Amino acid sequence: MQVWQYDLVYNAFSFTIAVMASATIFSFFGRSQVAPAYRTALTFTGLVTFIALYHYVRIFNSWDASFTVVSGQIKDSGIKFNDAYRYVDWLLTVPLLLIELILVMRLSPSETIAKSTKLGLLAALMVVLGYPGEISEVNSTRWLWWVLAMLPFLVIVYDLFVGLSDAIAKQPTSARGLVSLARYVTVISWCFYPIVFIFPMIGFTGSGAITAVQVGYTVADIVAKAGFGVLIYMIARRKSEAEGFVDGPGQLATAR
Amino acid sequence: MQVWQYDLVYNAFSFTIAVMASATIFSFFGRSQVAPAYRTALTFTGLVTFIALYHYVRIFNSWDASFTVVSGQIKDSGIKFNDAYRYVDWLLTVPLLLIELILVMRLSPSETIAKSTKLGLLAALMVVLGYPGEISEVNSTRWLWWVLAMLPFLVIVYDLFVGLSDAIAKQPTSARGLVSLARYVTVISWCFYPIVFIFPMIGFTGSGAITAVQVGYTVADIVAKAGFGVLIYMIARRKSEAEGFVDGPGQLATAR
Repeated sequence: MQVWQYDLVYNAFSFTIAVMASATIFSFFGRSQVAPAYRTALTFTGLVTFIALYHYVRIFNSWDASFTVVSGQIKDSGIKFNDAYRYVDWLLTVPLLLIELILVMRLSPSETIAKSTKLGLLAALMVVLGYPGEISEVNSTRWLWWVLAMLPFLVIVYDLFVGLSDAIAKQPTSARGLVSLARYVTVISWCFYPIVFIFPMIGFTGSGAITAVQVGYTVADIVAKAGFGVLIYMIARRKSEAEGFVDGPGQLATAR
Repeated sequence: MQVWQYDLVYNAFSFTIAVMASATIFSFFGRSQVAPAYRTALTFTGLVTFIALYHYVRIFNSWDASFTVVSGQIKDSGIKFNDAYRYVDWLLTVPLLLIELILVMRLSPSETIAKSTKLGLLAALMVVLGYPGEISEVNSTRWLWWVLAMLPFLVIVYDLFVGLSDAIAKQPTSARGLVSLARYVTVISWCFYPIVFIFPMIGFTGSGAITAVQVGYTVADIVAKAGFGVLIYMIARRKSEAEGFVDGPGQLATAR
């Protein structure tokens, strides 16, 4: 591995720690600035980035421990980089990401539970099916699990675009565009993952592949978790305003 | 011990740290979203997962220190894995788990104190009686303490199903099913522990038994503490709504 490759991944992980910590604080402060009905959505939004923050600290430390610098050259330290942290993270965060979108839409309690359960379980299944492929070095094994993981992914995409279209039509006008955008951000950012997954299968090998996979997953995580979280906050805020929510004496004074 | 066994336990512990931290934040934020009468129940719910978070950090570090990787093989480092952390954890969390269920039911103050004291002491006794068996390597000794620990367990089960049935019948309709479910989750998740305990006594030996015991206890802790905590929040929330609780000026504005 080249020094610039090692450094790029190292700095990308450190950057992501700062992003996830900031996004967590933003979501938790945001709770008091939206109507009570949307606070659980923002709790979940903050938990997603908090869980990612925890795992990026672990990933950073694992990366740091995996390599040593010997007279300006990067050498394996003998300690294996723990790839499982990502999958452990996704197993928790990917279902929560879908649930935060359902919660901010404020469907009926029964619909909320039904859709959260269905999409949450499909998301967990998708992550579980990806892992055996990720840890394999045999291309045919990687393709098999990639295809299996894509099946729940496609069901989720179908559900987001067809299953939720009635619910989106019922959102207040000021938030409808943002809710629809949140679906696109979900699907487009999630497409990064299966693409990054196939990098080693389409000719990227050695340290170039390792660098591309780590940086690729990191960029995808920032968009899908922190970027998506800001969008959820904006939706919650617009909907709160549409419902006449005023958050404190200062705003009351200016509203009068 | 195989590398995959070591890694499975390692990643399961790390996963549990993330789950317990998230569940703690969820419960503590949830306090402001329920009526004041249910806030102590959510404080206890968050404390249970907070105590578990603390112990899983210790358990993770103890596991990490117990083994070393020598040229891709897992070897004992000579430092003993500290099993006592689990029992110290349960001594605190298991009585609190029963008390959070009593608190969310909102019985009369005298009943709350009587039932919390009785179930809390039985739960502590159950954990204390299990420990001498856990640290023994003699099967007959393990069975003796297993049977002794099962006695308070059975009294707790009897009390949850017979002693609390009048109180459950008095819960608001919207929460009654969830309160009843919480009893089943308690009893079913708690059954994991005596089953995992007997793994080494029924033929599981060596590294396979160690892996099965550690992963088994971890899954049981996640269900019994974090899963149960979400259920307690949902009960508190439904009961708050049934009692006309509105949490903030925004909701008042839309309710008008």
